[in-house]
Amino acid sequence: MGLRTREQYLQGLRDGRFVTFKGERVADVTTHEHLGVGARHTALDFELAEAEAHRELFTWADDEGATHSRYFKRPENAQDLLNRREMIETSTREGGSVVLLVKEIGTDALFALDLVSRVVDEKAGTEYNARVAAFHRHCRDNDLTLAVAQTDVKGDRSLLPTQQEHPDYYLHIVEEREDGIVVRGAKAHTTGTPFVDEIIVLPTRAIGAEDADYAVAFAIPVNTPGVKLLASPFGAGESPSQFHSPVSSRHRLVDTLTIFDDVFVPKDRVFLQKEWQAAGFLANTFVEFHRFTAVSYKPPLCDLFIGAAALLADFNGIQKASHVRDKLMKLIAWTEIVRGLSRAAAFDCRITDFGLAVPNIIQTNLAKYHFAAQYHEAIGWVQDIAGGLVVTGPDEADLASAEIRPYIDRYLGGAGVNAEDRLKALNLVRDLTASDFGGYNQLLAIHAEGSIEAQKITIYRDYDLDRCKDLAAQIIGVERS
Amino acid sequence: MGLRTREQYLQGLRDGRFVTFKGERVADVTTHEHLGVGARHTALDFELAEAEAHRELFTWADDEGATHSRYFKRPENAQDLLNRREMIETSTREGGSVVLLVKEIGTDALFALDLVSRVVDEKAGTEYNARVAAFHRHCRDNDLTLAVAQTDVKGDRSLLPTQQEHPDYYLHIVEEREDGIVVRGAKAHTTGTPFVDEIIVLPTRAIGAEDADYAVAFAIPVNTPGVKLLASPFGAGESPSQFHSPVSSRHRLVDTLTIFDDVFVPKDRVFLQKEWQAAGFLANTFVEFHRFTAVSYKPPLCDLFIGAAALLADFNGIQKASHVRDKLMKLIAWTEIVRGLSRAAAFDCRITDFGLAVPNIIQTNLAKYHFAAQYHEAIGWVQDIAGGLVVTGPDEADLASAEIRPYIDRYLGGAGVNAEDRLKALNLVRDLTASDFGGYNQLLAIHAEGSIEAQKITIYRDYDLDRCKDLAAQIIGVERS
Amino acid sequence: MGLRTREQYLQGLRDGRFVTFKGERVADVTTHEHLGVGARHTALDFELAEAEAHRELFTWADDEGATHSRYFKRPENAQDLLNRREMIETSTREGGSVVLLVKEIGTDALFALDLVSRVVDEKAGTEYNARVAAFHRHCRDNDLTLAVAQTDVKGDRSLLPTQQEHPDYYLHIVEEREDGIVVRGAKAHTTGTPFVDEIIVLPTRAIGAEDADYAVAFAIPVNTPGVKLLASPFGAGESPSQFHSPVSSRHRLVDTLTIFDDVFVPKDRVFLQKEWQAAGFLANTFVEFHRFTAVSYKPPLCDLFIGAAALLADFNGIQKASHVRDKLMKLIAWTEIVRGLSRAAAFDCRITDFGLAVPNIIQTNLAKYHFAAQYHEAIGWVQDIAGGLVVTGPDEADLASAEIRPYIDRYLGGAGVNAEDRLKALNLVRDLTASDFGGYNQLLAIHAEGSIEAQKITIYRDYDLDRCKDLAAQIIGVERS
Amino acid sequence: MGLRTREQYLQGLRDGRFVTFKGERVADVTTHEHLGVGARHTALDFELAEAEAHRELFTWADDEGATHSRYFKRPENAQDLLNRREMIETSTREGGSVVLLVKEIGTDALFALDLVSRVVDEKAGTEYNARVAAFHRHCRDNDLTLAVAQTDVKGDRSLLPTQQEHPDYYLHIVEEREDGIVVRGAKAHTTGTPFVDEIIVLPTRAIGAEDADYAVAFAIPVNTPGVKLLASPFGAGESPSQFHSPVSSRHRLVDTLTIFDDVFVPKDRVFLQKEWQAAGFLANTFVEFHRFTAVSYKPPLCDLFIGAAALLADFNGIQKASHVRDKLMKLIAWTEIVRGLSRAAAFDCRITDFGLAVPNIIQTNLAKYHFAAQYHEAIGWVQDIAGGLVVTGPDEADLASAEIRPYIDRYLGGAGVNAEDRLKALNLVRDLTASDFGGYNQLLAIHAEGSIEAQKITIYRDYDLDRCKDLAAQIIGVERS
Repeated sequence: MGLRTREQYLQGLRDGRFVTFKGERVADVTTHEHLGVGARHTALDFELAEAEAHRELFTWADDEGATHSRYFKRPENAQDLLNRREMIETSTREGGSVVLLVKEIGTDALFALDLVSRVVDEKAGTEYNARVAAFHRHCRDNDLTLAVAQTDVKGDRSLLPTQQEHPDYYLHIVEEREDGIVVRGAKAHTTGTPFVDEIIVLPTRAIGAEDADYAVAFAIPVNTPGVKLLASPFGAGESPSQFHSPVSSRHRLVDTLTIFDDVFVPKDRVFLQKEWQAAGFLANTFVEFHRFTAVSYKPPLCDLFIGAAALLADFNGIQKASHVRDKLMKLIAWTEIVRGLSRAAAFDCRITDFGLAVPNIIQTNLAKYHFAAQYHEAIGWVQDIAGGLVVTGPDEADLASAEIRPYIDRYLGGAGVNAEDRLKALNLVRDLTASDFGGYNQLLAIHAEGSIEAQKITIYRDYDLDRCKDLAAQIIGVERS
Repeated sequence: MGLRTREQYLQGLRDGRFVTFKGERVADVTTHEHLGVGARHTALDFELAEAEAHRELFTWADDEGATHSRYFKRPENAQDLLNRREMIETSTREGGSVVLLVKEIGTDALFALDLVSRVVDEKAGTEYNARVAAFHRHCRDNDLTLAVAQTDVKGDRSLLPTQQEHPDYYLHIVEEREDGIVVRGAKAHTTGTPFVDEIIVLPTRAIGAEDADYAVAFAIPVNTPGVKLLASPFGAGESPSQFHSPVSSRHRLVDTLTIFDDVFVPKDRVFLQKEWQAAGFLANTFVEFHRFTAVSYKPPLCDLFIGAAALLADFNGIQKASHVRDKLMKLIAWTEIVRGLSRAAAFDCRITDFGLAVPNIIQTNLAKYHFAAQYHEAIGWVQDIAGGLVVTGPDEADLASAEIRPYIDRYLGGAGVNAEDRLKALNLVRDLTASDFGGYNQLLAIHAEGSIEAQKITIYRDYDLDRCKDLAAQIIGVERS
Repeated sequence: MGLRTREQYLQGLRDGRFVTFKGERVADVTTHEHLGVGARHTALDFELAEAEAHRELFTWADDEGATHSRYFKRPENAQDLLNRREMIETSTREGGSVVLLVKEIGTDALFALDLVSRVVDEKAGTEYNARVAAFHRHCRDNDLTLAVAQTDVKGDRSLLPTQQEHPDYYLHIVEEREDGIVVRGAKAHTTGTPFVDEIIVLPTRAIGAEDADYAVAFAIPVNTPGVKLLASPFGAGESPSQFHSPVSSRHRLVDTLTIFDDVFVPKDRVFLQKEWQAAGFLANTFVEFHRFTAVSYKPPLCDLFIGAAALLADFNGIQKASHVRDKLMKLIAWTEIVRGLSRAAAFDCRITDFGLAVPNIIQTNLAKYHFAAQYHEAIGWVQDIAGGLVVTGPDEADLASAEIRPYIDRYLGGAGVNAEDRLKALNLVRDLTASDFGGYNQLLAIHAEGSIEAQKITIYRDYDLDRCKDLAAQIIGVERS
Repeated sequence: MGLRTREQYLQGLRDGRFVTFKGERVADVTTHEHLGVGARHTALDFELAEAEAHRELFTWADDEGATHSRYFKRPENAQDLLNRREMIETSTREGGSVVLLVKEIGTDALFALDLVSRVVDEKAGTEYNARVAAFHRHCRDNDLTLAVAQTDVKGDRSLLPTQQEHPDYYLHIVEEREDGIVVRGAKAHTTGTPFVDEIIVLPTRAIGAEDADYAVAFAIPVNTPGVKLLASPFGAGESPSQFHSPVSSRHRLVDTLTIFDDVFVPKDRVFLQKEWQAAGFLANTFVEFHRFTAVSYKPPLCDLFIGAAALLADFNGIQKASHVRDKLMKLIAWTEIVRGLSRAAAFDCRITDFGLAVPNIIQTNLAKYHFAAQYHEAIGWVQDIAGGLVVTGPDEADLASAEIRPYIDRYLGGAGVNAEDRLKALNLVRDLTASDFGGYNQLLAIHAEGSIEAQKITIYRDYDLDRCKDLAAQIIGVERS
């Protein structure tokens, strides 16, 4: 046991799992034309843990001296959170601005389950925490990868689970047995499922007693019978050429519609079973850890926006134009507000009764909100500086043509840069902002880790408005009842 | 003579023109896999002029009773501009929100050349206006299509033409003959060039006496020797499936890098030849007409954003959520400010000494500025309402699979809508906002018809600041010298 | 009969009306230290109708050749609305950017009452329209001034009238007699009440059958027994010095809390009496006319912002700084979007069955919304250009001091301007943006003529969303039921 | 020596200083009608150092056990900066959201002088650092208060000091003597000057060798001959009534135009004398410390905006309206981004070679920029929630009138609140946002501690763009030379 190698990891994905792509069953996700890109991307996690330059950050020795991936380190103070934050930012930067997400999100869920199961156990006399702890050790000791399936498909969003047209729009328990439970339903946009060992399933929202069957959390191996992953084809059309698609040709997330077709979950893997009062608490606690992951992995993409725009400002000879500086300044401001608040969230963390360090909720949500709320404008600033050639330039094949290339070399050069290098930079902007991949990133900015509205609600709900009302009331001499 | 049919138009494009695509010469643009989509899109212009429902709007009878495409009608009053505006908005709506641009931009150039040539003739004793008028009649009477090549490739944008690394970064006259001129250079992102009969070439900026060779305007048939069109591959990867790409599978613009490899232009087609003082005037006058075209063709895309978002609000069951209404309201506000100002620009037009109606410059530029400045945010509002499934949903092939489809039907339905129709609506959002085509539209929003900064400069420069300063000075009792 | 003179108007205000100011009864509003400023401001209406330069715009001859104030002209086409718009913009500009509002709002109410009373008469068999017409003629023929009291004080805004703590939080009928009705209640922020001859009272919102007593509209002279005007002291502290307060020393609005202390209204002045179904219709119809008035009177203040900022850019020597130009451009864009849309609202008016021209609702509300939504930012741009001296500069008394003035002259001069003129310009910015008067204008921007939210609701409610949904549905091939 | 009492402090201000107000010499600033309010406000600093609840935060024991005001503690690590930040936030909150600024800004200057004088001494062989250290000890040991005069009056901002119409638009050395220097000039908007013991003078900008006479820094007692303070009357008109002006009746800043009429400065108080290369360095270093002070004192005002808006949302019965929650959320986001970044700036401080902890420049400037850039919008959100009654409500005298008060009590109550308390809350909004004082705060937000543009320039200039360019270049495989 201990750390796995890249190859051991990839080998582990060849376990008979049920994955489909464009209507066909996928035999081996690691060698598939589209999915293989994703698998090689996530395998970077294991490379970093081995690399001399990164080993210290990416691994961690427990009290008994055993070395583990640092992701499994339960955060107990601000420094733990800062380390985790740094590790996530670094792996994403190494991943060309694309988060790996095969251990980040899973451990977010483990921390949340740890905290919530203690509370549930105390109130309901259950023994979930021991199960969670055992599962945590199992993952840590075997250096496993994990996906989290949370978002139900939901049907009509204005209705509760049991009000829907049919009972399966939210995942639920259909049978309770002595040795475990049977669940049915589907979770939307589960990221990285084809590339992990285990799936953790969490409830998506607070519910009432009448929906108790929908209060369920558990973990199972991906190749469990009845688990069916319908991989989204999005991004599969990206060019495999690094010239054309410098990031997306090598780095890519894959999401699945994750079907649970009457799946049996053994008892020791069940972490919540009909304790409906805790469903919302678990959903929210997970989200709070996960939003901190989110704001840790966003900055490298922002940095790349700044870098691509600044390079093209140079290449186009416009780096001294006041509007260009203004747009670069706004890109910097956007980036560093996200980064600064994510660091502040670690510094100003809250230590729970159980010794778990929880990132500051207001700061975390503000960072995520600010990132998402300005993402599209930020794209506009980058595209503005880059110029129209981003989408009207020539193809790689044009450069390969002896007849056409001379025209490109003569006419598409820039300020102190040859045409080819300038086109590479333009293609970076295209790849990041004006392509299927760019579109994916836009939706990710808004919807991943909860929508913009979800962050707004969290900020409003968690804020101590009374402190401010008292301050105002005191100044005007009014008693607040 | 008179109006041409769709077939006559397409036949005219098979004239031996030099067009390349991905490094290969294209034999017939009308049947080419990618370019053919563009050609069929632009052919809509001829269908509309024949269609009973649209004929009245799209055609116009001259004083002698001859029927022409209305695009060639020289605007002489507000109503002419309103008609032109309506015609452009209608054809774009029929074109699935994609402008046709095979007569719009060319006639913008003709109107500008008419106005500028009169001024140049008067000052310089030249006879350009007669040439322009003859060319206008030629195009009108033969129902020709036209592209306009204006934007030079520019090299280092901080340098003037003759300061560049080599003299060809801006198109220029390399030989003046008795019977015409020879020109060299390249124009970037010329839209629709493969699908038109004639190219009008205009200067891109104001220049000084030392750059007089760069003050040149003319028109030539696309198949003129030395004219080489390097078609951009952008958007060529869009799916031909209407399910997957409801708009871009059928409607598409194609831009070219347009090379002028020592091209001879006969005298009667030369509209400016070294009168450098007029270069900026011509560039700006064209742009003013063309921005009015721009703000006439933008609203249908905005309408489609509203429609797609509103449909998905219904399908997702969130149409009553206050944040959804707020986003729809903002989409409406954005759309109707653009539409309202474009109409105001026609109402408040200026009639020149020569009887030409010029759309109000401030209103036109404000409409374009407002459209561009909020475009990316508008995309965000649409994507927010649509949901993450835009980029994590299944493929058409999944729907075609008997094994997989039942899962999709069961799990991806919405509020009063089946899964297939909901996916169609999600794909519309993907196509318009989160795809190569969506990226193209983003760059188009910012850079086409002049960048956002260009509109800002125009507004500032054209505004009567003194009127406002006088008002302030009068109220405070200060004399302005 | 016919037009009144300024003196006749002022004389008419000395009619025993019940007005209080800071706890004291006011004997004569025209000579009162604070209220007198307001009275002289509104008297400008009568001066303009007499002035050679303005007479044509401000007066109008009816079919029988009688000359009236043009405010009383019922708009029947786009040109009537454009004239009305121009008249309002002009009088506000002459009033130093402060609207007069002694005929504008009253005639807005008359037009709305005309339209609504026809509908009510048709449905309910009443004869309100004849009463409205007679009152309209009375006001027109006697050149009367009018205020409109609409906004109830409302108590707890989340409750309906009869749900409130007491029945008087909304104005209501307390007695119905043969010869009229008796009403009780209070209307908040009625503008200009001390300076008009008649008050028109309108309902503030849609109500249900249980609140029928609150469905009431009527008109009465200001000196009617039981009508009590509690004038707000706001702005009363402004300096009477033109140097210090160039606008507010001479131009000022006064609002009242308007009490109806069991006021008898004779039958022929009652325009709605318990027809509760029409209350919301009347409230909204009035507001639509009144918002067109609003967007007609806003541009002069915007112009003054531009002018003051541009003057100070010159005086400070920063007129060429790129950020200064950018801010001026944004001020221009803001101003001209409001102005352009207000003109478009006239051009694109709707002619009702009764021949009344109603300004385009979407355009009107967009203009108002855009004005209000950017007002505070606009202030920031002006203050940014003006500089901190706006609030740290010397007093008029300092300039008058022989000992101190030399320091001011030496140290506070600017670019080509002496210290005194520069301070005058700074004081203009202070008066307009950073003073009690400036604060008044801020609240006015947001709340007058309905809050920002009210405009958003109107735009959303009135917009033809189905047109856009149909367009989207057609493109994706989905049937809408 | 050691801490002074409030009375000792006030007594110290009665030292014959030359202060004028509205053209008149002020005999005693502590008892003057307007200035006295400011003096009592700043005296709070001494009360807090004595108060049991605050003593620990506001005082500090040096290595020898002597107790001093904590302001004089030279920051050596993140915790020192966090303490300083907390002290400033607390005193401002106790000051009703108005910063005291009698030690904050002065110590900012002392820290900057410490750092810069070391560098200058090293390069130029001067001995400024010893003088700075001695002055620091003097202030600390005598518990003195300090103002900083930095901003020159500038004349034409587009010209350098010696290019101006006369030489005195920037403060400069007019005579160099054995025992000191003589200076002439004027500094604009020096805050708190009438209420401090010493003035520190710093250069306002980087200059060239030709302007060496303008490179001067020093400190002198306020009552030094030739120092003349022209106090600005701004805010002097605020009501002394706490009901009407709950904040400004008791808390107020006073700025002066500070004249140096050939003032002699003894040698040991001169900290820069013609070393022009260091002028910009000193100006910027001071500003960096001072902006950290700025972002430490801004949050209480933001808190008060939130509190006032939330109270009025309750009082108006609109606290559940979605737009109200949205506006409160935006106020919270604005506040906590400022607060969070200001804390992050302390956490991520830089320790200089000399052991001084400098707050993170990017974070500090971002916090200040974000505060200023949204300040005016924030006001709009507060005013929107508060309602129009902010500027149309009754006067205190109306409440005192037995005849009028019953109407107010009956008609201006709200949801679970009586009229008087509701009016107090409305007056708080008026005082903070819609009054002379509110206007002062607006200008302060934009211009104090450097304008918005100054922060943008700092952020752009200090940011490591190369890091981002390298990241982009590496991903596209382009060598950066």
